[in-house]
This record gives sequence, structure tokens and C-alpha cells, in this order.
Amino acid sequence: MAPARTIAEQLAAKQREISVAEFFERNRQILGFDNPQRALLTTVKEAVDNSLDAAEEAGILPEIDVEIAKDADSTDRLRVAVTDNGPGILRREVPNVFARLLYGSRFHSNRQARGQQGIGISAAVLYAALTTARPARITTKVAEEDAAHVLELLIDTQKNAPRVTHEDVRLWDRSHGTRIELVLKAKYIRGRQSPLEYLRGTAIVNPHARIVLVEPDGTRVTFERAANEVPPVPKETLPHPYGLELGELGYFLKISKRSTALDVLTRDFQGVSARAARDVLARAGLSPGAAPESIQGPRQEALLQALHAVPLVAPSSECLSPIGPMLIKRGLRNVLGEVRPEFFAPPVSRAPRVRGGFPFLVEVGLVYGGGLPADQPMQLLRFANRVPLLFQQGACAITTAVSNLDWRRYGLEQKGGSGLPVGPVLVLVHVASTKIPFTSEAKEALAEDPDLDKELTLALQAAARHLKVHISRRSRRAFAQEKFEIIQKILPRLAEKTSHLVDKPVPDLTPVITRIMDVVNFDLQWTSEEGPRCATLEVTNYTSRPRTLEVFLEAPTEVLGAAALEPAAMGTDAGLGRAWWTLPKLGPNERARIVLAFPKGTDVDASDLDWYVAGVDEAHLLGADPLPGDWDVRLPRALIEAAEAAVPAEPDSGDGEVDYDAAESEARIGDDDG
Amino acid sequence: MAPARTIAEQLAAKQREISVAEFFERNRQILGFDNPQRALLTTVKEAVDNSLDAAEEAGILPEIDVEIAKDADSTDRLRVAVTDNGPGILRREVPNVFARLLYGSRFHSNRQARGQQGIGISAAVLYAALTTARPARITTKVAEEDAAHVLELLIDTQKNAPRVTHEDVRLWDRSHGTRIELVLKAKYIRGRQSPLEYLRGTAIVNPHARIVLVEPDGTRVTFERAANEVPPVPKETLPHPYGLELGELGYFLKISKRSTALDVLTRDFQGVSARAARDVLARAGLSPGAAPESIQGPRQEALLQALHAVPLVAPSSECLSPIGPMLIKRGLRNVLGEVRPEFFAPPVSRAPRVRGGFPFLVEVGLVYGGGLPADQPMQLLRFANRVPLLFQQGACAITTAVSNLDWRRYGLEQKGGSGLPVGPVLVLVHVASTKIPFTSEAKEALAEDPDLDKELTLALQAAARHLKVHISRRSRRAFAQEKFEIIQKILPRLAEKTSHLVDKPVPDLTPVITRIMDVVNFDLQWTSEEGPRCATLEVTNYTSRPRTLEVFLEAPTEVLGAAALEPAAMGTDAGLGRAWWTLPKLGPNERARIVLAFPKGTDVDASDLDWYVAGVDEAHLLGADPLPGDWDVRLPRALIEAAEAAVPAEPDSGDGEVDYDAAESEARIGDDDG
Repeated sequence: MAPARTIAEQLAAKQREISVAEFFERNRQILGFDNPQRALLTTVKEAVDNSLDAAEEAGILPEIDVEIAKDADSTDRLRVAVTDNGPGILRREVPNVFARLLYGSRFHSNRQARGQQGIGISAAVLYAALTTARPARITTKVAEEDAAHVLELLIDTQKNAPRVTHEDVRLWDRSHGTRIELVLKAKYIRGRQSPLEYLRGTAIVNPHARIVLVEPDGTRVTFERAANEVPPVPKETLPHPYGLELGELGYFLKISKRSTALDVLTRDFQGVSARAARDVLARAGLSPGAAPESIQGPRQEALLQALHAVPLVAPSSECLSPIGPMLIKRGLRNVLGEVRPEFFAPPVSRAPRVRGGFPFLVEVGLVYGGGLPADQPMQLLRFANRVPLLFQQGACAITTAVSNLDWRRYGLEQKGGSGLPVGPVLVLVHVASTKIPFTSEAKEALAEDPDLDKELTLALQAAARHLKVHISRRSRRAFAQEKFEIIQKILPRLAEKTSHLVDKPVPDLTPVITRIMDVVNFDLQWTSEEGPRCATLEVTNYTSRPRTLEVFLEAPTEVLGAAALEPAAMGTDAGLGRAWWTLPKLGPNERARIVLAFPKGTDVDASDLDWYVAGVDEAHLLGADPLPGDWDVRLPRALIEAAEAAVPAEPDSGDGEVDYDAAESEARIGDDDG
Repeated sequence: MAPARTIAEQLAAKQREISVAEFFERNRQILGFDNPQRALLTTVKEAVDNSLDAAEEAGILPEIDVEIAKDADSTDRLRVAVTDNGPGILRREVPNVFARLLYGSRFHSNRQARGQQGIGISAAVLYAALTTARPARITTKVAEEDAAHVLELLIDTQKNAPRVTHEDVRLWDRSHGTRIELVLKAKYIRGRQSPLEYLRGTAIVNPHARIVLVEPDGTRVTFERAANEVPPVPKETLPHPYGLELGELGYFLKISKRSTALDVLTRDFQGVSARAARDVLARAGLSPGAAPESIQGPRQEALLQALHAVPLVAPSSECLSPIGPMLIKRGLRNVLGEVRPEFFAPPVSRAPRVRGGFPFLVEVGLVYGGGLPADQPMQLLRFANRVPLLFQQGACAITTAVSNLDWRRYGLEQKGGSGLPVGPVLVLVHVASTKIPFTSEAKEALAEDPDLDKELTLALQAAARHLKVHISRRSRRAFAQEKFEIIQKILPRLAEKTSHLVDKPVPDLTPVITRIMDVVNFDLQWTSEEGPRCATLEVTNYTSRPRTLEVFLEAPTEVLGAAALEPAAMGTDAGLGRAWWTLPKLGPNERARIVLAFPKGTDVDASDLDWYVAGVDEAHLLGADPLPGDWDVRLPRALIEAAEAAVPAEPDSGDGEVDYDAAESEARIGDDDG
């Protein structure tokens, strides 16, 4: 054994400080620069995320050009240029923004943004210099200046400080914006985990952005804008006491400019009313007038415990920018164009919660059937603050929540009740927060957290319940359809042959058919997309007794507002998106129709229309649900009674308002004996 | 739209620098402090890893005590104390080592160590202060000082600088060592991802360490030392040019103290001989005498290209500290005590390779059968630089390599040929490197990398091939066993009954039996572990003609050296771990035995003994392999010929050297008619 003293001194002599730039240069895989392929994606991602943040903060509809080109000098290098129409960056900030790690405007803010770490784009500049020794070239122009500033930048890694290698001023044919150009060791691919996949994902959750990609071979891919409004800029908010740690409370008390504990609680935090603050202070044994700096040690601990024990107002959602159910659906429909899923579950957008002092919320979209592959695991699209997450799916809390749900209970196949289920299903999950708990600076996976997991699970369950209803309706309908076909084809032919043999007239089969079917069937059909698009609800009474049915429709207000109804509804409630009809009494085997005509281009499909029925119990209902208890039915009920008094009971006296034709129904049943 | 100028100025006003301590305080999940349970594990891990590194560097056999106790003040807090017998730390280094992020001795070094980032233990101090506002208490003593220094430390997060809150000197009942005590928000669990699992894993791959854990309820768990030698301290080495990036080459040229390009290449790098250096410089169009500072821009690029094109000496493995096949096996056997696996594949320890300029190597251990669960996915134990990796299995390059291997080809069940296979199998993978490419500062998963993936795959394939041979032998043997039993039970009774019926003598069944079996069978049996342990190889000639067989044994030299051989071998090669015998000619249905007796406690099992045979072709061989071509058989062959001349051919003249008893064999076959 060597003398210990010598060893201790030897070890001491080797101790030194590590610059953060050196650290990340040596550990570039942590930032997402593992290899040339991923380095390219990360570079594009950091630049585009910055451009989107900047444009949105300035209230500008983003226009972003991403050009990836071959480098003349070397086959393993690419030139990347990202240009935006954002507000531009002041000259004096350019070096630090692009060539200094841990420098930024959003780290200390308490609202949702894509960039939060102050690392991303400087890391791309660092990687480019490391692999090609070329500086980054920044061109930026703010609206009030006539010319653009052009700077070439490197990072001094020992100091983590920018170095300007060249500077210029030039005219630029845009009023404001920023362009970054980099030459880096990189490899262009399409498909999984590619810039194209990232930009497509970005387009799904940022339908207000227009993004153009020029690939190295010159191919131009354009993601057109699908919405023309900039999402509201999330508001800067105060911290919320839920999930606050002791050290953080101490910090806030220390930097506070208030003179009393009451003022600190009510004015430096959100969610604490004056009453709640008094309650908190009383519990902690502190007087409302106590000086903040006097609250130390055990008193600080008591204050924190009281803050976590007293009920506070939930966090404001103004600091968050959810995508919203309508745009989730529109985004999914855009990207799934040719797949034509048969079912879009109503997207789920949960209320905000707090995790470690930071508000967050979860949104889920779910799509089923159509051209989605039935024998593959679920496709999972993960997003955080409107940014697609393409790597480390296996290490992400979103994946864990999806995998831990027992999807067998919702009609999907799943080995052992955990893991990704198998089936024609795609799930989009978006987590929005003022601070996303990424597992690393590469920002590709969310860390496990009980609060986050709970919200993810609740949101997924809500979407999965819609899926379950759909799958069970579909299978009930398929079963009934089969029954139909057998009855409609076989019974009449059997009857005819038998009658012929025994030389007697063919009997009326209606009572038999209705006895076998014994349901009221609701069938929604969509007609061609030329001209107005029509949804036709056909209601057939396959029971053995006459029925007076009330039909209720619930739909998004903008969908219901756009529809022409035929027959006209007995009543509507535009605010709630509801309409209702009373059908004339339907005898066995008789049918009626309700037609909804939408102007061309209306964003609507079957999953927007929820049909409810009164007048028949659930056991005899197919394709619609019994009216749920939470409908306020008093109003329609009154109208229904008035309507019932007015409408004659005889089927053949039905007028144009209700398409009811018993003769046609009977003709159709039984004439199919080809 | 707000005026863009204003926006640009507003954004600029918000820009600021972020302290690295603030960054990690806010993103503590990146460092492994997601929640109280994981925070405890990470704290224990960082402290123990530091203790192991320090003791090993000082050539001390590590003794580490980990005490986890309840805190008197609060139910959600624990006190953690880790004490080691390392060399101690000089007083002046204590504040920076424990309370400053990005400060350390191993970041700039080029050899294998557990700690490489200069973050870990300071992060634990940061987390403790954040959650309980308590300082860390460090006690440390170096051998030549009489007393220990005691310091209480906090981190000033805005400055990332240590703050000493209390200091003292006291007597300590050990000559040297370090103790860290922390109070933190934490939760103690056993089972998966617990301190206990981490320490058990640590014991597997660090059999030279003695580790004691005291749990909060007072339970004491001791991992005794299983090896008494400190692994050789990995040597500091020069960087190797393979995988070097342009920026790094530029840095080395800049800081070099050499005066010529030739000197830089041969003396600042490893693996570059003078001849290779001249070759490289000629290719790059540079003169050997060129001044390092003159090599800029395109000349630098040309030099890098030449360095990657010219073959260089492989990197030295002196900077690495592999576990080695023997200790991998011993470690696995220790931890799998009660499981008693039926098969330990010979551990694989690959030669070092270079990835991005950093040497690395891969080791794999594989265990099969016994008490391992047959219906569960493979158990995967991941290690990096002798540290167990417990989190983020799904995001780790090791898991990817295991999942991408088609284990069906090696006899395991695996759905679709990817993912973790199902079966009674446990795989240990160790990656050792001067720089482990962790995906985050929490050091729980390795980033994907083609070079790493290739080595992982080759090592896994090598282990899997042994598994395949084992499984196929096992099933062949089981099949033969079944055949045996049928033949031995049914045939004699059939013959007896038939003979009885036709009133004729029972015929000799030997020719029939040998014709049906038609193999030479090698069967290894182990006898009781009281006294010396014996392995008995029984060789039976179930073919229809006499055979003269040569039997060869290959075993680890220490295993062969410990064995008493009965009969004595015809020859041995102690250096290669080989021994060989010639068996006397065996007639049909005759057998011979070779017995190996080991002293009690010898570390040996069936997988240590490889048996080879000459004198019968592979198709007629069961339980042993034909002699491979790479055996140098000239020596034994000569001896065999001498032996053949000396040994009589008649079976019954066999002496004590070879246990050969045809009478007994014949008696046994056929007497089982109960």
C-alpha cells in the first residue's frame, strides 16, 4: 500500500473545476448528439423550437424554412440553415444566445415554453465546431433596423464564452427574422427519428405554423398551416406552493421584497387567498405581520407543512398553452390523411395540476381502425410543450403510463395486461408544463412522477373508455348485421320455397323478423363529399310493437351550428350543442330518417355526433345510447308532449319532415332473393 | 401584433446566465433525484462509488459502512451516513469536492473510474439542503494527521460555490477514511431499485470490497469480501486517435508542448508508432518537422483523415479494469446461491476497442436453468465501470443489444425474434471504459453507439453460442435418456415374456440394444459435497462395434491443478489446462470411468470441464464433442501410441487405472425388470 498521505495529496493535486461547455462537449450524447444522424435531428429541433417560441411570443404566425444541403468539402458533413420570421434578436444578445451554454430567457420564467434550459442551440454550435471546426453563422434583423446583423460564432469551451470570428451588416429581404447556418458532421435519413418525422409531429401539434423542409436532394416538403390564429401567449405566473421544497421556500422568503409574512404568501405566490394565508400562518404558529427574514429553521419547516396542509386555489392555467380537443383532432386528421381511421375518440384535455410547484396538464387523442395496422403494437406519439419526442420511448413516463394501463379492459389485445397493446390504434399524448421533468438535457423522455402518472392514467382511461364503447358498439352492430343478413336472405327464401311446396301463399314475415331481431336500430351513413356532406341517421323499429321515440343529438357547437337539419329539430340548444326530435310512432319493421347536411369542408365525422334515445330501453337499442341522466330533459320533454299532440299517429300520414315509408321498408325486406 | 422592436428588446431584457447549480436544482430528476425513494438510492450510490474509487486508487481493500436511519424530526426524512477506509481528503479540497458541481479529479483523466463527471456527491448535498435545509457533515482524516477534520457544508446555488457553516477537528478511531452524513427527504424500500439491490449488484462486480448496510429498522446486511486482492489500478493513458473529432485534434495541437508534428503524433497519442506517424503525415501532405501550430484549417482536416486511414496499434487495455471471467463467475455464483443454476456459460471478456477516442471493453456472463423462473423474461444485470445500473433499462444500449439478438437461434423463446427472450436465463453485461457514454448525469443508461453495439452483440453471441450448445446437448441427452429407459425397461421384459411363451432361452440383447442406441455416451455425474467433491465421467459404448477412444479434458489451470485424477492421465499440459487419457478398447455395451476428485471448496462445476473425444465420429457421440482442430494433438498422439502398445486389448484385463468392468455393465443392463 502506498503511503496514504501521498495518495491524498496526489488526489488533491488532480482536482479541478470543469467548464460546463467542456462537460457537454465530452458528454455530447447527453444533449442528443450521439451520432451524425441524431446530431442532425437535434440541431434542426433546437433551431425550430427556438423559432416557434420567438414567433409565438411576438404574436407572429410562424413561417419556418429548414434547408439541409450537402457540403462541398466532405461527404460526411451537411449544411443546415433554419430561417424564421420571428422578431429577431438584438445584436448585443446574439453571441450569448447562440454560443454560451446555460444562458437564456426562459429558465427563470414560470410559463410554458419549448426551450427552458438555455442549452439547446449553443450545444448545436458546440457540436458543429467540434466536428467541422466551422463557426455558426447567424443573420438576424429586428423590425426597426434597416439591415441585418451577420455574426460568425464559436464557443471557447474552457471558458464557456462566445467568440465572434467575423461580423458584418447586410440588407435582408425580410422585415424581421433570424437565420442560423451550421456545417456539421451529420447524416440525413427519412423515416423513424428523422428531421421529417420531427417536423411532421411538430405540424400536428402546431397547426398555426407553416414549415418548409428542403432535403439534401432538393426535395421540398411543405407543412401548410391548418389554423390561422397564434395560440394565446402563456402568461407569466407566480409560483404555487404545492410541491414546494423547504430550500425553495427559504429562497423565496430571502429574496422577497414584502415586509410581512401575510404579504409574502398572498402576493409572491398564486393560489393563496388572504383567508387561506391567515389559516396557514395560524397553523404554523406565525403572526401575519411576522417579518419574512425572521422565518428560519423550524419556523420555516412549520410554514411549509401548513402550506401543504391548507386547501389552496388550484393553479391558474394561464401559464399553460394546451393544444385543445379541436386542434388535437384536426392535427391527427391532417397527419393520418390516407389512413382514414374509423374512429376518433373525443380528445381529452385535463385540467391543470401542480407537480413540485409547477403547473402541468395532460392531453390525449386516440384514433382507431381504418388503415391502421391491426397486428402491430399501438403507435404512440409523445409530445411535451408542443414538441414531438422521438427518442427514449422506453424510458419515458408517458410510455410507462400507457404500458401500465390494462388495455384488455377496453377491448384491445395486450399480453399479460401490460406493455404496449396490439391493435389498429394510435395514441397522442401531450404534456404541457411550465417545467417539463425531462430525464436529460436531450429532452426526449419525461421522468417518472406519481402526480404526472396519475394525470396521464386518468386522461388515457378517459380516452380508452370511448374506445371501449366504440369497440363494443362495433361488435354488437357487426353481430346484429350478421343476424340481419341471415334473416333478410334466408327467411324469405325459406318461406317462399316452403309455401311453394305446400302450395300456400307466402306468409307475412314481419312478426317473425321483429321477434328475432327485437331491437330498434340506429344506423348512421355518410354520403358523398361532393357538394354538402350528409350524415343520415336511419331508425328502424325491429321490435314487435309500435314505438314513439325521442332522438337527441349532442355535437360540438360549431358542428351543430353548421348543419342543416332535415326534418327540422323540435328544439335546439346552441350553447350546449344539442338538438332533439320526436319521431312519429313507428310500427314493427317501419323506419324513419334524420338528415344532417354540412357545407363542404366542415370538420366533422361520426365521432362528433353523439346520439341518445328515449322511448326504448337499453336492451333493445342498437347504435345509440339511452338518454343519460345529466341531460336537462325538462325542456324537450315539454316540447315532445306538444309535438306528440300535433303529429298524427298513423305511419302513412307522415309528411316530408320525417322520411317515413313503411311500404318501401317492407318492399326492401324480402326482395333480396337473387 | 405587438411592435417587433419592443418584443426583441423585451426578450433581450429577460436573457440571463444560469448557474449550473440552479440548473440542476431545478432539474434534479436529471441527476436521479426524481422522488424520495430514488433520491435515497442515488445518494447511497454516489457516496459508495466515490469511496470505492478512492480506496482502489490508494491500493486499499475497501471497507464501506452504509447506515440509513430514521430522522427524529420528520417521518419523510432519513439520515444517511457512508463511511469508508479510503485515504481521506485534504482539508483544503473538502468544500469543493462535496459542495461544488462540475468539480473533480477524474473528468480530465483517461482511465476507468466510477466517477467521471464531478457532479454526483455534490448533487446529493444540493438535494439534501433543498429538501431539509440541513448541511452535509463531512469527517475525513488522512494517515499522517492526528485528528480528523469535520466540516458542515451547503452549496450557494446562485454561485455554485461551497459554504462552510461549521468547522471542527476531532479524534477519530481510524487511521484514515472519510464519512459523509446527510439528512434528506427520502423513503426506504427493499426489492427492485433499492439501496439493497444496488449494494448486492456492487458486491457481484466488486468481490474485493466488504460492504455493510444498516437499514432504518436496525437490520444489518453484510456483503463479505469474496476476493482479497485490490484490482490493479487502471493506468492513465494517452488519447488514441481513433474516433477523434476535428475540434479535439485542434485542441491537442494547440496545447501540445512538442515542437514537431512527428513528436505530437508519437508522444501525445497512444497507438502511433514512428513509422505510422510518418505514414500519416505523408498522406496528409505534411512534413514530419512541421510546427504543430502551423497545422490549421484544411491541413488539420487532412491530418485527421490520414489518422483515421492509417492502421494504428490497438489501444492499450491498461487504462481499463475488467472484472475478468473468473470473478464474473464467482460473483454470479455468490448472488445466485440458492437458485443453483444448472449451467454457467464461460464468461466472455472481449478485447478493448475504441469509441470516439475512448477505449472500452465488454464482458458478458450467462447463467441458465436450475431455480431461475422458466416463464419470465430474461433477467438482465447491467453494469458500467463496476457500478450496477438499476434505472432506465428500456433506454439503455445494453438492453437494445440484448433485445435485437435473435435468441430463438440459441434455443430461447422470443416473440417475433426481438425483445427480451423468455426462459430461465440471467445475463450480466459489464461495459468498462475511460468514458462511459451515459444518456444523462444520473448515469443509469448507455447511449446507443454503433461501435458499442457491435461489441455488445459479439459478446452476447459468444455467450449465447455456449447456451445453444448446452440446450441442444441437454435435449439430445434427454432424448437419449428416454430412449435408454425404454430400451432398458421394455426390451428385456419383452424378450423374457416372449422367450417364456415360446419356451426358449432369453436371447442376448446386446446387439439389438447397441444397434438401436448406436452412440458412445459420455455422462458426467457429481457426487456429494462432503469430503472431496468428485466428478465422474462414465463412457459407455452403445454401438455395435468395439471402440478405442482417446478422451481429452480442458479446464481452467487452477481447476485442473487442484484435481486428483483416477485413473492418472496419460499426459497433462498444466500451462494450457489440458489432460488426456486413452481408454482400453470398449466392446459393445461396455463402459469405463474417469474420476476427478477436488478438495473441498474448489470453485468448479460442469461448465468448467470441456470433454473432447477422438476415435468416434460426431454422429455417434453423446455428451462430448469431437476433438477440435485447434488442439495441438501431436504430443498426446505420440503418448497414445505408446499407451496403446502397453495396454492389453482384452476388456477383463483392465487394471485399476481404468475402471472398466464389463461384467457389471452387463449385469446392470437387463436386471431392471421390477
